[in-house]
This record gives sequence, structure tokens and C-alpha cells, in this order.
Amino acid sequence: MRAVDVIQRKRDGLELTREEIVYFVDAYTRGQLPDYQASALAMAIYFKGMTDAETVALTEAMMRTGEVLDLSELPGPKVDKHSTGGVGDKTSLILGPLAAACGVFVPMISGRGLGHTGGTLDKLESIPGFRVNLSLGEFREVLRKSKLGLIGQTPEIAPADRKLYALRDVTGTVESRPLIAASIMSKKMAEGIDALILDVKTGDGAFMKSFPDSKALAEAMVAIGKGMGKKVAALITDMEQPLGKMVGNALEVVESIETLKGRGPKDLESLSLELTAWMLHLGGLATLDAARIKARDALDSGAGLRKFEEIIELQGGDPRVCGDLSLLPHAAEEIPLRAAHDGRVSRIACRAVGHAGMLLGAGRETVDSRIDPAVGLVLHKKVGDLVIEGEPLLTLHVNDKGRLAEAEALLRDAIRIAPEAKPRGPLIQAVLG
Amino acid sequence: MRAVDVIQRKRDGLELTREEIVYFVDAYTRGQLPDYQASALAMAIYFKGMTDAETVALTEAMMRTGEVLDLSELPGPKVDKHSTGGVGDKTSLILGPLAAACGVFVPMISGRGLGHTGGTLDKLESIPGFRVNLSLGEFREVLRKSKLGLIGQTPEIAPADRKLYALRDVTGTVESRPLIAASIMSKKMAEGIDALILDVKTGDGAFMKSFPDSKALAEAMVAIGKGMGKKVAALITDMEQPLGKMVGNALEVVESIETLKGRGPKDLESLSLELTAWMLHLGGLATLDAARIKARDALDSGAGLRKFEEIIELQGGDPRVCGDLSLLPHAAEEIPLRAAHDGRVSRIACRAVGHAGMLLGAGRETVDSRIDPAVGLVLHKKVGDLVIEGEPLLTLHVNDKGRLAEAEALLRDAIRIAPEAKPRGPLIQAVLG
Repeated sequence: MRAVDVIQRKRDGLELTREEIVYFVDAYTRGQLPDYQASALAMAIYFKGMTDAETVALTEAMMRTGEVLDLSELPGPKVDKHSTGGVGDKTSLILGPLAAACGVFVPMISGRGLGHTGGTLDKLESIPGFRVNLSLGEFREVLRKSKLGLIGQTPEIAPADRKLYALRDVTGTVESRPLIAASIMSKKMAEGIDALILDVKTGDGAFMKSFPDSKALAEAMVAIGKGMGKKVAALITDMEQPLGKMVGNALEVVESIETLKGRGPKDLESLSLELTAWMLHLGGLATLDAARIKARDALDSGAGLRKFEEIIELQGGDPRVCGDLSLLPHAAEEIPLRAAHDGRVSRIACRAVGHAGMLLGAGRETVDSRIDPAVGLVLHKKVGDLVIEGEPLLTLHVNDKGRLAEAEALLRDAIRIAPEAKPRGPLIQAVLG
Repeated sequence: MRAVDVIQRKRDGLELTREEIVYFVDAYTRGQLPDYQASALAMAIYFKGMTDAETVALTEAMMRTGEVLDLSELPGPKVDKHSTGGVGDKTSLILGPLAAACGVFVPMISGRGLGHTGGTLDKLESIPGFRVNLSLGEFREVLRKSKLGLIGQTPEIAPADRKLYALRDVTGTVESRPLIAASIMSKKMAEGIDALILDVKTGDGAFMKSFPDSKALAEAMVAIGKGMGKKVAALITDMEQPLGKMVGNALEVVESIETLKGRGPKDLESLSLELTAWMLHLGGLATLDAARIKARDALDSGAGLRKFEEIIELQGGDPRVCGDLSLLPHAAEEIPLRAAHDGRVSRIACRAVGHAGMLLGAGRETVDSRIDPAVGLVLHKKVGDLVIEGEPLLTLHVNDKGRLAEAEALLRDAIRIAPEAKPRGPLIQAVLG
């Protein structure tokens, strides 16, 4: 088999065979096939797409370049959630403990934030002592003890994806639906899970801004999961404004703990509960309706909060943060941004809010940027809320003021106050699966 | 400027600026920009094409990575011909001497054969002693003396094209019209010529098989030439059957000499004369009609033949071959292929004939293959000719019989004999310019 023939077949719109895909991925990962052929193939895929069968084959091939966890010795369903990323999206910190408290194993391998979006690992690391870089052996042990484990991508998981993603990033081939879907799923499917719920964000703050694009990505990922014999469903959820009210790493831990205590914002609570219910349902523990009741019970009883304390302790963190939020990092200064006039919040440009958080130090401009766990912002108003001139719209939590003015200007543009606000669409816009 | 942005702009169908194209080509040629970005851009160009302005900018940028000959000290028009390649296409060996004999300088930089097509350099090298690897200084000197020079591509000419072509060859990006046009023209425009006549082949034996594809390529090249301020025109000529009757390196020299003696096959003679006339006309020496008479005179008077002898001697070859064809290499055996039944030749599959020649050793399977100058084949019949059962259709000139059976089988399939043959279309199918 010759790589150039595989590239030409894809370029000409033909369906690649599983053998061709496995050959290409394996040879590329082992360094036997050069970057310039992989980038040419990626660009051909960008233009010609992939069938479901090709995408499944690509995902499996990428997954099999690395370790695939075998968690079959754990007695119960193994289920994870994956979000395509957004602003203020901290549901993992809530649904992980809730689902584990309800009896599913949650082997969660997460990522870091980049650009306007946050990452679960960065949030967890704002908890003093919390270690996300467990070995796969330690991860197994933590899972066995608490049914929950929260770690970062390891070099053993899908090395093909790591290599290919770095190449796509510099060759204009990131924005290809089958490549995005295969990249996500190759890592998730390596977790040794039985089922996966996908939270595909849509709107201004999401990777996919339009509903049709989000739906198409969700469909591609569901098809891959099913093609690999797993139970997979997807919720397409709103990212036209931040989820919850807090954006920033320690701030999002605060809001997660508050939510586990039953005091969280409604949008964050309801989405976290619904995703938990889907995890229980896909894991075979209950019908969806019964699962919703179980999830709510785990929240109301405090079982979720206790599970969060347990996993913090198991992963080396200080579990007292759940009782004493002052143990989390705090910014030096809190600076309100006030409403310029009366009205109703008609829009909160979500990507700009995430970008402002990044400028304050809560996120990464490049993969090498350092973040400040303490900084971020707290929204006091969301879309539809009434505001009075001079009232704080949000509070900036600031340490380094170097880019404060830039962040403030961005936020002032981002929040629109109008005489009327259109009613908000539903948080969960569609369910696939 | 970032390479990834240039790639993305092309991917998204935007027109690249001259600055972007120059940046990309220069950085790539100097090794400051990796192959994987160049191959991604090439694939994006494959799908999105290039405007005339982009193609001109690309051609100029590639040309300027190397030496551009300045022949302005030569007193007269500098004109070349370029053919997109075919089977039995030896017009360069005829029109070069004819045009030089008529007073234009012909600084001809040619290529080698690959696959089913032959190359001018290989044909010339079948003349004992003939040197095609002159330095650019020697080339100038030969041109000054005889108005004609016949050499191969040197490393100084358009190194960007050499590097990019090698990359395209292994990344499925050869078949892109703007890239093909820019590749050809970047080398031709470096010859320091004032005018260029293009012979764009069309049909089974051509690089472009369909007339619309051939016409589009011709238009792209004419647009580039004009965009660079040169006089350029194109003939689109038939390659549904070989040109002339002989295929193979020394055999094609034989047929060229015979043609310069006025004894060549009509198709080869007429195309060579017409291309010569265009060279004189584009060079400003005469109207096209007057140029046709001049070209014919140079043939009939023997001036073309004498010019060929002169250039052979100047480039180190034995000019006595023109008078004594036995001084050229001869194959050990001549094997006829006979007609299986009576009828009329209705088709000669041109590519297959070229491929059969390659199997005998007249052409290269890969760029590293060695060729045998003596071998090839001589067609006794062309499309439309009557044949009688048992009559030789062609004669194979063979040294190594290793792949003879394969070549014979290919040729038997290639030549169709039917009760009737459709009349042949014109040799020159269109004129652009």
C-alpha cells in the first residue's frame, strides 16, 4: 500500500477502506510516514469528508495506537461525559460526583483550557494539592475506591491523536467534522467505558456556533460511539451565554460546590442533573425518568458533595475546601462593572466573556501560557434580567491589571442592555441517541 | 505573516495576495517553512484553484527562487516551444534547427521522459557524444554561435519548482491545473525568452486526456505568459495516436533527421513546420503566413538539417549521424507484430504504445530507471490505413526480451482493426493566443 494512493483516493471522493486507514494512522504514528503526507490527507478529508464507516475506522485506528483501558474488573457500568467546551461549563465537577454517588464508575480523562474556553484540569488544580497527573495505575486504584477518577490526558492514550492534532493546528485542517469527531472519540473510547453522554455546545461561546453544525458534529460522534459498540447519546445545549454565573478556575470550583450543596444557579444545576441522569440511564441503572430522580436525590441528600470531598482527598487535595471556600485561591481585587443605563440584558456575548477571563489570566492564549487560578469574573445578571443604571452587571476578580482595561472594554461591548429582551431558548436544544 | 493563515485563506476560497504567495514560496524553498504546510497548501489549491493573478504571482515567485537568464546581448528574438508531452513527439529536434536557421534564438531547456512519454534530452543523448549538461555559460556560448542550444534543467533554474514538484508527486497534488501551469511556466520564463509557443497535447496519450482540460491548461499558461509580459500562444494538438511513426530515442532521432531531409511522415512534418512558423511569428520576424513560407524554405533548402549538424557538433556529438544513420545505436533484433485480420486501423491506443516502448527499455518506469537508447518501435500503419491479414502493423526494436511478451500483448490490444474507421480529426484542434 502506498500513502500517495490513499491520499489520491480520498482526494477523488472515494471511500477509504479500514485497511487503508489503519495503515495510514499506524505508519504515521510510528514515524514511517511523513507529516507532509498526513497533512495532505487531512486537507483532502477537510474537503471530501468521511463516511460513518471511515470515521469509525479512523477513531479505532487512532485509539489503538495507544493504551485502551480495560476496566472490566470494576463491578458496574463505566460511563463518562464529554463536553465540546464552552464558557463557565463546570458540569464535570458536579455530575462526576453525582453519577459516582449513584453507582456508576466515572473514569474521566479531561483536558486543559485554551483560548476563551476553560478546562476541567485547570479548575481541579485550583484546589490546593489536587493532583490530576495520576499514573494509569493510580487512576485505576482511585476509581476502584471511589467510583470516580479525574485525570489528564496521558502519553499512553491515543498518541496518534496528539501527533495529528498538532499537525492539523498548523496546516489549516482543524475545522473538519470527521477529524474533530474522531479526535474526541479516540480519546474517550480509550477510557474503557461502556457508555458516553456527549454535551455538544452550540452558540457564540461554542466551538460550533450554528445549531446545524453542532447537530452534525453530535451525530458524527454518536455514530462513532455506536459503531464501536458503545451506548452513546448527545445533548445539544445552549452556549449563547456562559453556563452558571462564575468564570475562572477557583471561582468555578466555588460554584460547583455551591451547586452540590443545592445553592447553584438553575441552569447549571438542571444541566448537571440531566447529564447525570443520562449517565445512569446509558449505564443501564434505570430508565431515564427514574435516573432523573436518583440524580436529584444524590444532590439533595448531599451524597454528591461527599463524593466530591472523597475524590479530592483521594487525589491529594484538601477536602476542607468544600466546607471552607476561603481555602481556595482568591484574587487581590474585586472590581464591579456597572450598567450604563436601565433595561433588560438582551445578550451576553459568550465568547467575549471567555476571552475577557483569559485576558485576566483565567485562560491560556497559547498552550504555553500560565494561568492564575484565582482570577475570573462573576456575572450578576444573565439574559432576560432587569438592570438599573449603576447596578453591577458583573464583578471582575483581578490580580494582574496589565490587560484589565482591555478585558473591561470587551465586557462592556459583550453585555447588551435593551428595553426588551427576546425570551431565551431552551438550555437543552436537542437530544440525539 | 503565518503560513497557516495563508493555507486557511486558500482553503476558504479567498484569493491570495502576491505578498502571501512570495512569502510562502521563498520560505519553503529556503527550508524555513516545512513540507507539511506546503503539501496542505497544494491540496487546498487542488480543490480551490487559483485566479490568473495568483497563478502569475506563483510562477514569478517560483522563477525568482533561481537564476533568470538574461540573453539580451543576443541580437534577435529569443523564442522557445514547450510541449506537454506525448508519444513519438520529437518536434523539438526539428523545429529547434528550423527556427534557428530562420533567425530566432532558441534557448531550449528540456526534460527527460517518464512513464509512457519520451523526453528530448534522452533522444539527444542517443547521438554519440552529445552533451545536454552544459553549464549556463557554455549554453550562452553555443547559443551565440548557432542561435540554438539544447540543454537539461539545471539546479540554478527555479529550484522552488523542483522541490515543490517532488512534494506534489507524493502527496496527490500533481493534477492541479494552476500548479501544473506554474510549474511549466516558471522554468520556461527563466530561459530569458521573449516569446513561447505551447504545444498542448490532448487525447489518450497526453497528460490531459480531454479537450476541455487541455484547453483550460493552455489558457492558464497563455494567461501566465501574457501576465509576465511575454508573447505566448498555444496550439492544442492531437495525441490520440503517436506523432509520426517512430517511438524510442535513437529511432526518434532517425525520424527527425528524415523529416529535416523532407522525408518525414506528414503529421510530424506539418506540426513541426506550423510550430516553427509560430515561433518566427511570435518572435516578430514575420506575419504568420510569411513565417510558414520561411519555415518551409528552411526545410526544403536543407538549412534546418545543416543547423542540426551544427548544434550536434557544438554540443560534442558526432554530426556524421545526419548522413549515416548507422552511427546511431541499433537494437539487436527487429520483431514484427502482424495484423490478425483484414480491415482498417480504427484506433491506436496511444498511451499503451508509449507504455510498450517503456517496457522495451525506451522509457523510464521511475525517475531512477535506466533507458536503452536503441530500442523502441516503428509503426507501419496509422489510424485510417488499410491492412491485410499477416501484414506487419509495427516492428519492435528489441535488446532485452525480459518484458517483450508484456509489450506485445499491450500492443495487440492497443491497435484495433475494424471494417471501417472514423475519419481522423484535425491534428491541430485549436489555436489560442
